[in-house]
Amino acid sequence: MTPSHDVPPSHDALSTLRVALGERSYPIHIGPGLLGDPQWLMPHLAGRQVMVVTNETVAPLYLDALKRGLPDELEVHALVLPDGEATKTLASVERIWDALLAAGFNRRCTLIALGGGVIGDMVGYAAASYQRGVAFIQIPTTLLAQVDSSVGGKTGVNHPRGKNMIGAFWQPRAVLIDTDTLASLPPRELSAGLAEVIKYGLIRDDAFLSWLEARMPALRRLEVDALTPAIERSCSLKAEIVAEDETEQGVRALLNLGHTFGHAIEAHQGYGHWLHGEAVGAGMLMAAELSHRLGWLEEDDVTRVRAILEAASLPLAAPAGMGEADFLSLMRLDKKNLDERLRLILLRRLGDACIHDETPPEMLGELLENFPRQ
Amino acid sequence: MTPSHDVPPSHDALSTLRVALGERSYPIHIGPGLLGDPQWLMPHLAGRQVMVVTNETVAPLYLDALKRGLPDELEVHALVLPDGEATKTLASVERIWDALLAAGFNRRCTLIALGGGVIGDMVGYAAASYQRGVAFIQIPTTLLAQVDSSVGGKTGVNHPRGKNMIGAFWQPRAVLIDTDTLASLPPRELSAGLAEVIKYGLIRDDAFLSWLEARMPALRRLEVDALTPAIERSCSLKAEIVAEDETEQGVRALLNLGHTFGHAIEAHQGYGHWLHGEAVGAGMLMAAELSHRLGWLEEDDVTRVRAILEAASLPLAAPAGMGEADFLSLMRLDKKNLDERLRLILLRRLGDACIHDETPPEMLGELLENFPRQ
Repeated sequence: MTPSHDVPPSHDALSTLRVALGERSYPIHIGPGLLGDPQWLMPHLAGRQVMVVTNETVAPLYLDALKRGLPDELEVHALVLPDGEATKTLASVERIWDALLAAGFNRRCTLIALGGGVIGDMVGYAAASYQRGVAFIQIPTTLLAQVDSSVGGKTGVNHPRGKNMIGAFWQPRAVLIDTDTLASLPPRELSAGLAEVIKYGLIRDDAFLSWLEARMPALRRLEVDALTPAIERSCSLKAEIVAEDETEQGVRALLNLGHTFGHAIEAHQGYGHWLHGEAVGAGMLMAAELSHRLGWLEEDDVTRVRAILEAASLPLAAPAGMGEADFLSLMRLDKKNLDERLRLILLRRLGDACIHDETPPEMLGELLENFPRQ
Repeated sequence: MTPSHDVPPSHDALSTLRVALGERSYPIHIGPGLLGDPQWLMPHLAGRQVMVVTNETVAPLYLDALKRGLPDELEVHALVLPDGEATKTLASVERIWDALLAAGFNRRCTLIALGGGVIGDMVGYAAASYQRGVAFIQIPTTLLAQVDSSVGGKTGVNHPRGKNMIGAFWQPRAVLIDTDTLASLPPRELSAGLAEVIKYGLIRDDAFLSWLEARMPALRRLEVDALTPAIERSCSLKAEIVAEDETEQGVRALLNLGHTFGHAIEAHQGYGHWLHGEAVGAGMLMAAELSHRLGWLEEDDVTRVRAILEAASLPLAAPAGMGEADFLSLMRLDKKNLDERLRLILLRRLGDACIHDETPPEMLGELLENFPRQ
């Protein structure tokens, strides 16, 4: 576990990872220019009927390039939804189903999710439930979706009472990560994606964490020599974890570092006000502070966590006006909880996360009370 | 394939079958008095939180008996939905999700479907999508649900454009068939269930078909010596087929004999006006007639099919006013169709069904035109 600054090799060619899930295995292709080149898409289509689902922000940027590359013999439809986490609802998924049925799509069709995590999660769930399950392909266009939500088959929508409460495990046929799409990403969304990249270092790979600490400025400048290996290493760590535990019976829960706090922040603020990655960023700092109170992390470790989050331009404080009781009532609904126990992902050391359900309530209460507010 | 009148052994003790699906395998318990005896339910609960979902017809008959048997340490909630196929909608499933979230149910909860096929299909889909999948148990109280829809993990709801268009493959933890519940079943619903029983004979077991021909009056009188073995043989045939082909890539499609015609009838009439089994009954006669036109069944075979459906008091004609074009446009949406071909389940012989996608359109047109109308 010696920190090293040379972990992910830097390169600019296309690389392919594989999520190993038996007959549900699939490739993740990473590189520039994938989106307009049909060779990456064609082998994964289930039939002639293709529905591209995207949003109003992404459509003008990439929809034409994607459609232009597809051969004429396909029946290609497109559905453009509004943008934003607030649209991640069952009503949006119903719009997808309505469009599929209106176009007469049968079981041998393919849905393509072109956009960020919201589009990917909704389209994946629409595919999981259309005629009891059809094929879908992820083409994530945000860093967050590329390194996290597009890989691993977690799909779903929010419910007024909680995030991602309705959904399914449904694996894509392929994930195509076109790194060129990051050029159009607003800085706030880039930071939100970096939160999930940092997460992989924190939970499983301290060498990668050190590598990231050294390259945060380069990542924020979108330097391809930093960005491509960061995406690749993140996807590779995620693919490993998903292959070990597809339906989150155990180790996969570690990917939720910072998410129990983060989901509470998102729900309290109303979905879409904080970006998911921003809430996870603040949540990871809360998890690190709590891990310190439990005697696992050193003060210096927490300082490192705070510093890398700050370098990624992520929030270091919880929302103003969000009280301890707000956190607790929202955290109680978290999907990881079993029976009455609150389960949190915490850090034994940097690079080594664990599932913990024995945090003394008063310790959690003190953290929630004393953690800085904006 | 010699017809015999002695196929399913007659008995009145409890019997258990098993659906063999690897780690998703589960038992089907069949017998009198199961519903009030917690020993059949308890081993399959995932945790303390239990939600019984039933309807306004079934609740007054069996909900108390079921709840009375459950130990106090469980947290048991009940949700009573309206009755009928017209309620098999996403809106009803949303009511289930709302109730689960309002009660603070986590992933380690169990949904119990107490009712007919509509309740089973909706509760199964609600379980499949709640927090990406939780446990559920089927307690079917209609013959149709007992011999068909409760076994095999097909769950879902109707869409205005087609039946069962939204759903998932999601297996129950157990199926508890309490044969006592059939005493409260209206005769029309009993006939609808018998349609699916007859189906098993037609598609896979001509000896069972002959056995049923001899016992139709006894079955309609609910004689337990006929009913229990008929349920058992039906479930056993279904379990075999599901174990071979869980997600309907091949042989499982044979279970849809009569269903392509039947779904069109149900959709045309508005869900709930014809019972599902009634529509399937008429649809099986249409499939038999078409199989005769293709030169596979003899005239006498079709006569036998008509006679056993008549003995079960099932409709032998399509709805008045439902034209050839109505059938064709609705049949085109069937989930079995791939690309542009209409796929039908037809009979090579009695007891031997096949998937066929080469029916000449003019032959199908003639059948649809000439088949009797009510």
